[in-house]
Amino acid sequence: MSPQKYLRYFGLNSLFGTQRTKEILSVNPTVLPHREEATHVEVTVYDYDSANIQVHHFNNVSPCEKFRKDGRITWINIEGLRKSDVETICTTYDIHPLLIEDILSINQRPKMDEVEGVLFCLLNMLFYNDQKKTVETEQISIALGKDFVISFQEDAHRDVFDLLRSRLNMSNSKIRQRTADYLLYSMLDLIVDNYFIVMERLGEQIEMVEEEVIRRSNTKSLARINQLRKELIVLKRNLAPVRDLISGIIRSESDLLDDRTTKYFKDVYDHIMQAYDLGENYRDIVTGMQDLYINNVNLKLNEVMKVMAIVTCLLAPATVIGGIFGMNFEVIPYAHHKWGFYFAVGCMLIIPIWMLWVFRRRGWF
Amino acid sequence: MSPQKYLRYFGLNSLFGTQRTKEILSVNPTVLPHREEATHVEVTVYDYDSANIQVHHFNNVSPCEKFRKDGRITWINIEGLRKSDVETICTTYDIHPLLIEDILSINQRPKMDEVEGVLFCLLNMLFYNDQKKTVETEQISIALGKDFVISFQEDAHRDVFDLLRSRLNMSNSKIRQRTADYLLYSMLDLIVDNYFIVMERLGEQIEMVEEEVIRRSNTKSLARINQLRKELIVLKRNLAPVRDLISGIIRSESDLLDDRTTKYFKDVYDHIMQAYDLGENYRDIVTGMQDLYINNVNLKLNEVMKVMAIVTCLLAPATVIGGIFGMNFEVIPYAHHKWGFYFAVGCMLIIPIWMLWVFRRRGWF
Amino acid sequence: MSPQKYLRYFGLNSLFGTQRTKEILSVNPTVLPHREEATHVEVTVYDYDSANIQVHHFNNVSPCEKFRKDGRITWINIEGLRKSDVETICTTYDIHPLLIEDILSINQRPKMDEVEGVLFCLLNMLFYNDQKKTVETEQISIALGKDFVISFQEDAHRDVFDLLRSRLNMSNSKIRQRTADYLLYSMLDLIVDNYFIVMERLGEQIEMVEEEVIRRSNTKSLARINQLRKELIVLKRNLAPVRDLISGIIRSESDLLDDRTTKYFKDVYDHIMQAYDLGENYRDIVTGMQDLYINNVNLKLNEVMKVMAIVTCLLAPATVIGGIFGMNFEVIPYAHHKWGFYFAVGCMLIIPIWMLWVFRRRGWF
Amino acid sequence: MSPQKYLRYFGLNSLFGTQRTKEILSVNPTVLPHREEATHVEVTVYDYDSANIQVHHFNNVSPCEKFRKDGRITWINIEGLRKSDVETICTTYDIHPLLIEDILSINQRPKMDEVEGVLFCLLNMLFYNDQKKTVETEQISIALGKDFVISFQEDAHRDVFDLLRSRLNMSNSKIRQRTADYLLYSMLDLIVDNYFIVMERLGEQIEMVEEEVIRRSNTKSLARINQLRKELIVLKRNLAPVRDLISGIIRSESDLLDDRTTKYFKDVYDHIMQAYDLGENYRDIVTGMQDLYINNVNLKLNEVMKVMAIVTCLLAPATVIGGIFGMNFEVIPYAHHKWGFYFAVGCMLIIPIWMLWVFRRRGWF
Amino acid sequence: MSPQKYLRYFGLNSLFGTQRTKEILSVNPTVLPHREEATHVEVTVYDYDSANIQVHHFNNVSPCEKFRKDGRITWINIEGLRKSDVETICTTYDIHPLLIEDILSINQRPKMDEVEGVLFCLLNMLFYNDQKKTVETEQISIALGKDFVISFQEDAHRDVFDLLRSRLNMSNSKIRQRTADYLLYSMLDLIVDNYFIVMERLGEQIEMVEEEVIRRSNTKSLARINQLRKELIVLKRNLAPVRDLISGIIRSESDLLDDRTTKYFKDVYDHIMQAYDLGENYRDIVTGMQDLYINNVNLKLNEVMKVMAIVTCLLAPATVIGGIFGMNFEVIPYAHHKWGFYFAVGCMLIIPIWMLWVFRRRGWF
Ligand SMILES: [Mg+2]
Ligand SMILES: [Mg+2]
Ligand SMILES: [Mg+2]
Ligand SMILES: [Mg+2]
Ligand SMILES: [Mg+2]
Ligand SMILES: [Mg+2]
Ligand SMILES: [Mg+2]
Ligand SMILES: [Mg+2]
Ligand SMILES: [Mg+2]
Ligand SMILES: [Mg+2]
Ligand SMILES: [Mg+2]
Ligand SMILES: [Mg+2]
Ligand SMILES: [Mg+2]
Ligand SMILES: [Mg+2]
Ligand SMILES: [Mg+2]
Ligand SMILES: [Mg+2]
Ligand SMILES: [Mg+2]
Ligand SMILES: [Mg+2]
Ligand SMILES: [Mg+2]
Ligand SMILES: [Mg+2]
Ligand SMILES: [Mg+2]
Ligand SMILES: [Mg+2]
Ligand SMILES: [Mg+2]
Ligand SMILES: [Mg+2]
Ligand SMILES: [Mg+2]
Ligand SMILES: [Mg+2]
Ligand SMILES: [Mg+2]
Ligand SMILES: [Mg+2]
Ligand SMILES: [Mg+2]
Ligand SMILES: [Mg+2]
Ligand SMILES: [Mg+2]
Repeated sequence: MSPQKYLRYFGLNSLFGTQRTKEILSVNPTVLPHREEATHVEVTVYDYDSANIQVHHFNNVSPCEKFRKDGRITWINIEGLRKSDVETICTTYDIHPLLIEDILSINQRPKMDEVEGVLFCLLNMLFYNDQKKTVETEQISIALGKDFVISFQEDAHRDVFDLLRSRLNMSNSKIRQRTADYLLYSMLDLIVDNYFIVMERLGEQIEMVEEEVIRRSNTKSLARINQLRKELIVLKRNLAPVRDLISGIIRSESDLLDDRTTKYFKDVYDHIMQAYDLGENYRDIVTGMQDLYINNVNLKLNEVMKVMAIVTCLLAPATVIGGIFGMNFEVIPYAHHKWGFYFAVGCMLIIPIWMLWVFRRRGWF
Repeated sequence: MSPQKYLRYFGLNSLFGTQRTKEILSVNPTVLPHREEATHVEVTVYDYDSANIQVHHFNNVSPCEKFRKDGRITWINIEGLRKSDVETICTTYDIHPLLIEDILSINQRPKMDEVEGVLFCLLNMLFYNDQKKTVETEQISIALGKDFVISFQEDAHRDVFDLLRSRLNMSNSKIRQRTADYLLYSMLDLIVDNYFIVMERLGEQIEMVEEEVIRRSNTKSLARINQLRKELIVLKRNLAPVRDLISGIIRSESDLLDDRTTKYFKDVYDHIMQAYDLGENYRDIVTGMQDLYINNVNLKLNEVMKVMAIVTCLLAPATVIGGIFGMNFEVIPYAHHKWGFYFAVGCMLIIPIWMLWVFRRRGWF
Repeated sequence: MSPQKYLRYFGLNSLFGTQRTKEILSVNPTVLPHREEATHVEVTVYDYDSANIQVHHFNNVSPCEKFRKDGRITWINIEGLRKSDVETICTTYDIHPLLIEDILSINQRPKMDEVEGVLFCLLNMLFYNDQKKTVETEQISIALGKDFVISFQEDAHRDVFDLLRSRLNMSNSKIRQRTADYLLYSMLDLIVDNYFIVMERLGEQIEMVEEEVIRRSNTKSLARINQLRKELIVLKRNLAPVRDLISGIIRSESDLLDDRTTKYFKDVYDHIMQAYDLGENYRDIVTGMQDLYINNVNLKLNEVMKVMAIVTCLLAPATVIGGIFGMNFEVIPYAHHKWGFYFAVGCMLIIPIWMLWVFRRRGWF
Repeated sequence: MSPQKYLRYFGLNSLFGTQRTKEILSVNPTVLPHREEATHVEVTVYDYDSANIQVHHFNNVSPCEKFRKDGRITWINIEGLRKSDVETICTTYDIHPLLIEDILSINQRPKMDEVEGVLFCLLNMLFYNDQKKTVETEQISIALGKDFVISFQEDAHRDVFDLLRSRLNMSNSKIRQRTADYLLYSMLDLIVDNYFIVMERLGEQIEMVEEEVIRRSNTKSLARINQLRKELIVLKRNLAPVRDLISGIIRSESDLLDDRTTKYFKDVYDHIMQAYDLGENYRDIVTGMQDLYINNVNLKLNEVMKVMAIVTCLLAPATVIGGIFGMNFEVIPYAHHKWGFYFAVGCMLIIPIWMLWVFRRRGWF
Repeated sequence: MSPQKYLRYFGLNSLFGTQRTKEILSVNPTVLPHREEATHVEVTVYDYDSANIQVHHFNNVSPCEKFRKDGRITWINIEGLRKSDVETICTTYDIHPLLIEDILSINQRPKMDEVEGVLFCLLNMLFYNDQKKTVETEQISIALGKDFVISFQEDAHRDVFDLLRSRLNMSNSKIRQRTADYLLYSMLDLIVDNYFIVMERLGEQIEMVEEEVIRRSNTKSLARINQLRKELIVLKRNLAPVRDLISGIIRSESDLLDDRTTKYFKDVYDHIMQAYDLGENYRDIVTGMQDLYINNVNLKLNEVMKVMAIVTCLLAPATVIGGIFGMNFEVIPYAHHKWGFYFAVGCMLIIPIWMLWVFRRRGWF
């Protein structure tokens, strides 16, 4: 059966799909901003100081201007990217056009930058898609300014900030006592913490595939291993640059960053390093799995060859003896003997049995 | 059928061609300047300040001297390289002979340098050739001096600067407000942006080959994978040194570079880093494809071996029984029995059917 | 026989288990602190100066406060981690909440940090489990403050500090003469020294598997090699970061570290470098083993193929001659000759013998 | 046929020779100076300033002393190494004994050093041997002092300095206007330029072998690939250290180096970097070739296996049917039928034809 | 024949031995000082200044105290390590206990350190064992103090310092004119020079194995390649850290090192870099050999398969024709024809000959 038939049989064609490759390779750092405009934008504003907090919900960014210089810390969370909205809010909050371009880019490399009084971070939130068994990314851009943080998410359906929201609502939480950079820290911390959740799911997937390789090692297995390798590419693409992003913040001497917050960013750095190391371990284990798979395929081939060798050997005496006594010579010894036939058949049986005994002694099977 | 016949059959000999290897390996950093003289040279001069712009077209460089010290920014774009022209213009604009040598070199490594008041960049524009499915390069040298930028392109048929030209014509565009280094930035930005367009085409090619490997995995596939690897060598050869080029500009403390422009070069740096990372992902995916291909070839071998094993096993009882009852002994049991023949043939059929059942239970096919 | 049957036969299914992969990949740097609370906590306090020493045993951390400012050096060793206990002692000794989180994390990357007057080290003690043939880790966090060292171990059953305890009891030992950083040094030294003991056991395991690969090279072998590779991942994960940890201490300019102790930390650094190099050698040797294994599997396949080739060749003349003289033509030469049969059989024997002689001369077997 | 016979047949034993390995591995950085004394030494002195130039030829170094302090720039080119000569000239020109040792060493790693007022470079000129298809090296040591350059070549038959000699003879050439460091630059430039000529030849060789691999892929191919890999080792051994050598000169703050010359050394640096990158590309392409070769060998095996499978399948019905109707039962159906024989033979033909049709549909051949 | 039988036959079991792995992996950086006490200790003292030299031989270290402050340079060479002796001499000469531990350690990583006025180097002398074909190591520790050098060798049978001894006896030798650091240089120089002698022997071994791989490529070959790889691990383990050791001395600003000696240490650095590069080349060549070996094994398999394919094809017509005319039908065409038999046999011969001709044209053999 050809590999494809196998795949079709096991319903695995989708695994092999080049669709995933396409997704992974698609990239657009503003060559031509062909990002689709979001149909639905949600803007949530948390405006707080240690004493009290106000939460506002809008459908566009225009009401956000009033929080600019109210002396309180403002977190504007924009879910859904629409070019006009991004440009409006950025102009209002003096965010440089280059950063607007970054916010609207697709699949950009995680980065941090300080441009004219704004500390800017762009990275991806990772989510694990249980149906497709893929790592999904949602780009998030965070701009930290004097007394404000603006975050831009690609879509409104999900993020990783629920814990942050509940802490903001507690007036005695540390986040309410501190400056805006602590809010940035909290967001990065939650994003990086979520990487571990995604990696845990991927780790489970690796274990499952490993078990399958050990148990059955069929064509499906290499397809799955290859799929895992693609997901590890997605991971690697996010972990290494985020590591640089965090260490960039730690080394930064921006006035926006309070000295007291540095130790918190160092904590996030520990975690991203941990995630990075773990990603390397994943690679090692997947490589080991692939070696194991190839070995199993080879062992199966060896087994088939052994059966052929054994059957060929079993045939040998029958063929030879049958050939000898099947010749149409007039004078054939024992041809007329009563036990001739039985003697010949006996040889046909005893010789292969002796052969089997020899092969087993040689450790062939 | 031998591999070549396959290839000839599928019209793929060209894919395997060593022609591409020759192109990739040919290099000439001025050992002996055997670059062919351009038959046709186009010189375009944009002479502008924020108020107005003049565009001139010439067929040689001699009329360019007058723009040297007119107090306006001058972009001289020379398409087609002729030794005498390059030397004339460089002497006029005080560009060092070593840079003349670089401009006239073939396939040189991208580099930036500051020599006696001129900031010099040499890199390649990349284009994707849809017919040959190769990445083509056109070397471009850019010299930035006080109030001028001179660019030297290998040929006049194409470049990536159309967007730049239209912006130059808009008097309110940023490029018209700024100094000459912003013009250099705009050119590098467009060149690097174009890398993504080329990589996108190469990415599509990778997806196509991947699909082919999954679907058919014939000899063609490895030829195509090998071709892709060669194109990735071309990419790698351009991305890493251009990264160094851009970071060299960022770190440079040349008076020619305005502090306000640094953030723009940093933006280009983000993009070239992105391209570099993407190139690494391409390599990983192509390596995965090659593993998959080799595995598929091995699986096909296993399949063939299985068929042989099965046929050999099917033959075994027929051979043995036929051999037994074909012997010319006088006394053969059941030889004269009415159903003897049918009993023997029955054994010939039943035994292989039982064997098949055993093999299937063992998961052989 | 399928690979699994082999494994079941040799009782090796456990070797292949994905259980170990799960253990290695499980990680939790405080995403959600789901560490199990220790049921049993042992607190041991060594309170000493050069003149005398007091040893106290408690079941919780509350009595530890009194040692805080008694002017003597205090080592509080806490075995078993309970959230409340850790928080209590850390609050008492002014250890930052971020460090509490680290102490309670699972499988974290070894790290050192200085947070508000406390030098903090987190690393793993390694133990070799002889039954499972795995490297086990026990996380240990050590906080060095002014006049105190607090160590947090995961469980109370084992550690590597017996030698330290006996030295503490000797009033003339160097540790009794020195400041608290020498105590930290002594702990790190013993932890790293113990790595060599674990690596020695792993080395023995490598030798055993190597011998097995050379002697038998069955399916078991690759399973064992794969297991070794997983253990080497555990090693690598501990050695490289501990190297950074120690060099971080050496480069640190903390007031808690006496200049006279630096040379001792350098000695530990030598040892961890040595362990790291040795770990690399392990990898090289295991890779060599895997190549050897694959080669042996291939050689076995070649051997089987040779036997088939030889048997096929032996069959050839018998088949041909038997076929020739088994045809039912009326006129068959020598059919009626007295020695015809013997001549034919003689050919059947002589030709394969000549073939064997040819094959041997060609060096086939 | 065994591999050696193949080789002997194609006259390729020499390709495989370990002779080349011996040459590559032989090394002697002055352990015991067993360099053979040159039988013939040629000393050429160019003594010049911008106004005029004198050229002298000697057979030994003793007449060279007089140029030491004549206020003009002196290039002493010594071809052929004799211990006494080297010692004499070095003593005369105050070159340190350690450098004498370097000059007399064999196959030393390219290096630069500044020892007591002398800037010393040791590197290899490369030449391509068309007969043996190997990269040959000739060690050259260059000592730059105040107003003099002394170069030591291993033999008198060849070097790469002809262009330099003709420029020296032109009184208006830059080299005549500048200080001695420009002479050093010119020599290094010519040596590095020549690397490209050698690499071009090696590149042609790579293309030829690639074409051969694609066309025929016989045992010869791997031998040639292996030979290429050895030559690439020679290249690599020269390119990386020469890169360090040149960057060492650029970073050097020796008084012997004029600031105006730095840009020229940077130009050489560009070229050696280019050569280094190209060397990496060579490695990638040769690796790709080896993969292609191995794949072709495997495809040939698959083809052979397919033929066997097909022939085995074709035999199957003939064997079975022949076996069935060859049995000596009394009652054989259709045995006495007129068309029985033709019907049986027909089955023998129709069944394999149907099989072939099935196989082709499965895409087996 | 199973691989082991082959080995036993060729007397190569020892090659495969895990004994060597054990030796390589055994390591003990003072975990528990279980170094065996030397039974025999030789102490040689060279006490010299530029005017005269005295040589003393002792069996223990106690008489060495008197040379401590005699104002002359003292080299104490201790061959054979006994804990008490090492401690005595180190106490006398104020060498720190941590260094005593290093001196007594087993298989430690080469290192240099400066501890309280003593510059300490620990490295290995390498020797090539011609019988076992292994690289042997003897640990040597050298302590350089004010006016003294103390060296500790593991055993008294051999070292690499004979040349040094003869130079010491010449009053006009440089070593007699200089300070103690020149003595240290001389020792390191001789140790590193000796590395080349060992590598030369290993290189010869590599050439021999390469020739064997090309000529015969039997199971023995991979065993030998694997052995070479182990020896290369030993090399690598010594070369890289000694490189760091020497560069540590060069960068050191210890008062014990005279500025005039730096250039000599740089010379040693050149040599160790050379040795390191050469070691890398060894690795590349051995890797190439392994590829060649695997290829040869595969080619042999292909050859065997081809023979089988050919024999199978030769059998095909005989089997089919024999089967056809062996059927017991009454009506068999030409069965009664005079030349029927010869015609059938002719077909049996002509068809395979035609097949062979086809195969040869396809380039199968
Ligand atoms: Mg995204
Ligand atoms: Mg996305
Ligand atoms: Mg969202
Ligand atoms: Mg966290
Ligand atoms: Mg947290
Ligand atoms: Mg294979
Ligand atoms: Mg080009
Ligand atoms: Mg081009
Ligand atoms: Mg153009
Ligand atoms: Mg751009
Ligand atoms: Mg842009
Ligand atoms: Mg950007
Ligand atoms: Mg933490
Ligand atoms: Mg743990
Ligand atoms: Mg644990
Ligand atoms: Mg414990
Ligand atoms: Mg230790
Ligand atoms: Mg110790
Ligand atoms: Mg030297
Ligand atoms: Mg040489
Ligand atoms: Mg030479
Ligand atoms: Mg010469
Ligand atoms: Mg040049
Ligand atoms: Mg030049
Ligand atoms: Mg140049
Ligand atoms: Mg030590
Ligand atoms: Mg040793
Ligand atoms: Mg030893
Ligand atoms: Mg000794
Ligand atoms: Mg030396
Ligand atoms: Mg020497």
